[in-house]
Amino acid sequence: MSDAFSRTEITKRLHDLVGWQFDGKQIAREFKLEDFKQAVRFVNRIALTAEQLNHHPDILIQYNKVTVSVFTHSANGITQKDLDLAFKINGLVD
Amino acid sequence: MSDAFSRTEITKRLHDLVGWQFDGKQIAREFKLEDFKQAVRFVNRIALTAEQLNHHPDILIQYNKVTVSVFTHSANGITQKDLDLAFKINGLVD
Repeated sequence: MSDAFSRTEITKRLHDLVGWQFDGKQIAREFKLEDFKQAVRFVNRIALTAEQLNHHPDILIQYNKVTVSVFTHSANGITQKDLDLAFKINGLVD
Repeated sequence: MSDAFSRTEITKRLHDLVGWQFDGKQIAREFKLEDFKQAVRFVNRIALTAEQLNHHPDILIQYNKVTVSVFTHSANGITQKDLDLAFKINGLVD
């Protein structure tokens, strides 16, 4: 099991993760797609990545907007697994 | 454009819509699937229905839980379009 990072560590590590914000509990990023169809397509790509890493983000679809929230329940905090997942998800759009 | 229903009308019409609740703004239902993979599969089926009706719900995936929220922005309320979509989504699981 990964250990949870401190708030300071999270803030520091987020510098390398374009678009992700820490809300005090989770780290999250909002993605804007072209339309609903593209948003759902993007969610499927996120889902594949999540299955590969065996780590599953919360995903909210609002028409062309996809908000991805990441958290490690077993550590009750943000761990390396979350950063790895966020990094891979960024790789899907960059 | 469909007209928005009154609160009384919504409550009455929800009797025929198993599992859907009105929160004062949207109508929503939570679906429990087997796992994340099945949840994403279900979201794809909802998306197809949404495209067919050209009416797009908000969809939240939390591991095996899918929460679908429906609202008509153009009418700023709940309309027949919302009930039709909710009914079709129920048809995907019943």
